Amino acid sequence: MDRKRVNACIEEIVKARKADGGLKQVFWVAAGGSNGGFFPAQYFMDRESKSLRSQSFTSNEFFLAPPSSLGKNSLVILCSMRGTAETCDAASLAKERGATTIALYIEESKLTEVCDYSFAYESISYDETEASEMNASYGLFLAMVLLKKLENYEHFDLAIESFSVLDRVYRDAWNYTLPLAKKWAERNKNESVIWVLAGGPAYGAGYIFSICNLEEMQWISSPTVNTCEFVHGPFECTDKNLPMFILISEGRTRPADERVLAFLKKHTDQNIYVLDAKELGLSRIDKRVSEYFNHLLFSPILNNVYLRALAIAKNHDYHYRRYMWQEKY
Amino acid sequence: MDRKRVNACIEEIVKARKADGGLKQVFWVAAGGSNGGFFPAQYFMDRESKSLRSQSFTSNEFFLAPPSSLGKNSLVILCSMRGTAETCDAASLAKERGATTIALYIEESKLTEVCDYSFAYESISYDETEASEMNASYGLFLAMVLLKKLENYEHFDLAIESFSVLDRVYRDAWNYTLPLAKKWAERNKNESVIWVLAGGPAYGAGYIFSICNLEEMQWISSPTVNTCEFVHGPFECTDKNLPMFILISEGRTRPADERVLAFLKKHTDQNIYVLDAKELGLSRIDKRVSEYFNHLLFSPILNNVYLRALAIAKNHDYHYRRYMWQEKY
Repeated sequence: MDRKRVNACIEEIVKARKADGGLKQVFWVAAGGSNGGFFPAQYFMDRESKSLRSQSFTSNEFFLAPPSSLGKNSLVILCSMRGTAETCDAASLAKERGATTIALYIEESKLTEVCDYSFAYESISYDETEASEMNASYGLFLAMVLLKKLENYEHFDLAIESFSVLDRVYRDAWNYTLPLAKKWAERNKNESVIWVLAGGPAYGAGYIFSICNLEEMQWISSPTVNTCEFVHGPFECTDKNLPMFILISEGRTRPADERVLAFLKKHTDQNIYVLDAKELGLSRIDKRVSEYFNHLLFSPILNNVYLRALAIAKNHDYHYRRYMWQEKY
Repeated sequence: MDRKRVNACIEEIVKARKADGGLKQVFWVAAGGSNGGFFPAQYFMDRESKSLRSQSFTSNEFFLAPPSSLGKNSLVILCSMRGTAETCDAASLAKERGATTIALYIEESKLTEVCDYSFAYESISYDETEASEMNASYGLFLAMVLLKKLENYEHFDLAIESFSVLDRVYRDAWNYTLPLAKKWAERNKNESVIWVLAGGPAYGAGYIFSICNLEEMQWISSPTVNTCEFVHGPFECTDKNLPMFILISEGRTRPADERVLAFLKKHTDQNIYVLDAKELGLSRIDKRVSEYFNHLLFSPILNNVYLRALAIAKNHDYHYRRYMWQEKY
């Protein structure tokens, strides 16, 4: 990640927008897994931003029913690997309304043409990609730089150092989970439904695992259940047959995850799989900021270790799509 | 709904907060179905608010990892039928931080004790309750009053009149869907998974149908899939066996729902159930505001017509709980 260039870009935008009353709001706009990749940025902003508004939209919702506040005081950050049509539409609309736009991308497209600034990230699906180079990391880093410039976010330096710690934790976690994922995959290869439980800073990682890895790539129905919502409805489904995959995050919302786990352990240990950020070593990152890195560790491990193991156990190539990119929709 | 009292309450809060620099942000905080009931308020604020920040949190996430901006310039609106423990904790925290608090409730509890203001709503589960008296309607109304007072929301009078139109549309839709729901229930009574597809202003109604009606009350796994995300992953699961229930909303995001429906019709008509706000008569409400009422129509119809029909077809009493309220968790 070219952090200097990101820093300079945000500095330039903040300066340029001063004439119009200042940068007042940021929108995170994307579709599918790219949308999920913005959850860590939004989670960070929801908790740390003192006055900058931050809102997340799916590209289509942003384009079809745009916020009336969208305008000169807005920064719109969009993400798409290859220029998803509705994300391009959202970018064009943002430009028309006078907002500044940043594209996160893998391949150049209409999106990078339209946007004022563009940063190339690396697909986490490649073995050599570091966790700090994926779209979710760019999103979180952009959020941190924004709050550093606008509100002097106090743990900025610590957070920035943490990205390189993250890369080391990720490599170790990969090796650690390889044999565990194989066992999980063998046990779950014939399931048609797998619940993913995740909360707080890990919710986005659970969401991507559900909609991209399990549903899109393995055709397994997968509700993502917020651990803070579980005992307010969904837990009535708990029994010894229903497979669940629960992410336990590090940080302030951990007690909510642990509460769910205690309930599950009381009622069934039959097919509950626990992936704990503590077990994966996330606490090697300073605890003043580690909470914000849960997604950045969980998401690549789920994509590159658990999905791959399941694809092998099921003999279902995860590159194969029956509808996506095969037809117009 | 005692609209005068709600109006007077917001007026008093806005006035009282002027000394501290004004009311700058509103938080919607609840758990489970009550949390889902705030989605229409948040959807409205996301699109209409020009400067008032609006954020939604589950009670536990708000309490465990509170926003650093929470303080004297904040209004926290909480909802719980009977004083959910973590919603009470969230209210106490908000008070400690100097925020103003409003409780929406059915039975008085610690929540109404702690909060500065309280409004009793009516459970939509009772036959005689009007759609305009349920928690989701209070949430939306509060959001509209806030934007009327602070930003002079232009369609306020029209929106307020629409609550009584909604009540008439709801009664007609109830009668209309009774025989349809019976057929749907007969066909789906043996399913263990039902996908609920919903987007934009109807997403919250879909979410409540999934986590409260299908999962909590009928033990059926139910991913809620955002129609704007469907073709970016989940649609790869589409086949002739997987039952889907799709909400088509009125308003600007309707094309996103219709796109999903067109895809489904192309690939399967086997077990797709369509509930369309247009068919239910939502367009009897003026189209400048009808979009914001989708949830308020869908949600009670799903709860009182579709859930009940399914409970009868399955012979599974929807009042019965195996874990909820039966033990500590």
